[in-house]
Amino acid sequence: MKQHVVSALVENRAGTLSRVSGLFSRRGFNIDSLTVGETENPSISRMTIAVTGADPVLEQIVKQLGKLVDVIAVRELDSACCVRRGILMVKISADEATRPAVLQIAGIFRSRIIDVSPATITIEATGDIEKLDSLVLLLRPYGVLELARTGLVALERGSAVLSVPVLSISN
Amino acid sequence: MKQHVVSALVENRAGTLSRVSGLFSRRGFNIDSLTVGETENPSISRMTIAVTGADPVLEQIVKQLGKLVDVIAVRELDSACCVRRGILMVKISADEATRPAVLQIAGIFRSRIIDVSPATITIEATGDIEKLDSLVLLLRPYGVLELARTGLVALERGSAVLSVPVLSISN
Repeated sequence: MKQHVVSALVENRAGTLSRVSGLFSRRGFNIDSLTVGETENPSISRMTIAVTGADPVLEQIVKQLGKLVDVIAVRELDSACCVRRGILMVKISADEATRPAVLQIAGIFRSRIIDVSPATITIEATGDIEKLDSLVLLLRPYGVLELARTGLVALERGSAVLSVPVLSISN
Repeated sequence: MKQHVVSALVENRAGTLSRVSGLFSRRGFNIDSLTVGETENPSISRMTIAVTGADPVLEQIVKQLGKLVDVIAVRELDSACCVRRGILMVKISADEATRPAVLQIAGIFRSRIIDVSPATITIEATGDIEKLDSLVLLLRPYGVLELARTGLVALERGSAVLSVPVLSISN
């Protein structure tokens, strides 16, 4: 079973998220990560859903998503033709003795220091899943106090776009 | 009505997202942005929910979230004491003539170029809502073809953490 990334343009109104996530959970699909955020149009949000499951079932879910009135456009994004990124924020235990080593690792991953306290450093990094996993692996020995990751956000490469059908604009 | 950011540690299983988002939608709260992602513990996910609404109702929602069996810990994160970040990915229409100007704007915002095609540039930037909004404002005249934003992800400053109660670990 591989991880699939589904991108959907949805109406920005109460209940949409609940209906979309319900569709996945009724099929027993656990969502690995999900992000909902604004688009250029304030009435439309974009959802990016990463989910692990069998291909035929996912295909069915994408079709059913397309039938929801809240969903304007939906497509599975193939990993080969899209750019995927997520944010990692991680709070590491670091005092005077270990701070230089932690900063060095942060530097190698071109990540940014967003907060420092006498006993902690909070680091922000962006990248694909593998890069963020490696960063966490290297930082773990110093003591991970807290960690937050966004789900993936993905766009197709080149000039392809997940477009809003003309019909739903004129409606 | 102001925007609130709620951070929750939840069980990583099918249906959790649907139950949590249902709680918001039943109260007529529209979620501005939401991210669910992994934490250090594979059985626990962290949700960061940005929502606009009246203070007393939000307070009730946080209390009710805390009662859900899927929710391990939940807290509203005050903007003064936490670091908030989101990712923006935006595909801009840019040819030979306009490419230098678009690259210059990207440079000012310390954003990264993640894809270039003969007619487009795709840019990735991280920051708080205001910074990302300004970047979009500057890029808009060149033609925004597609835009994806993650919701916010937030951690408290300093050494404070949203901890897993000892009880639920020993269970």
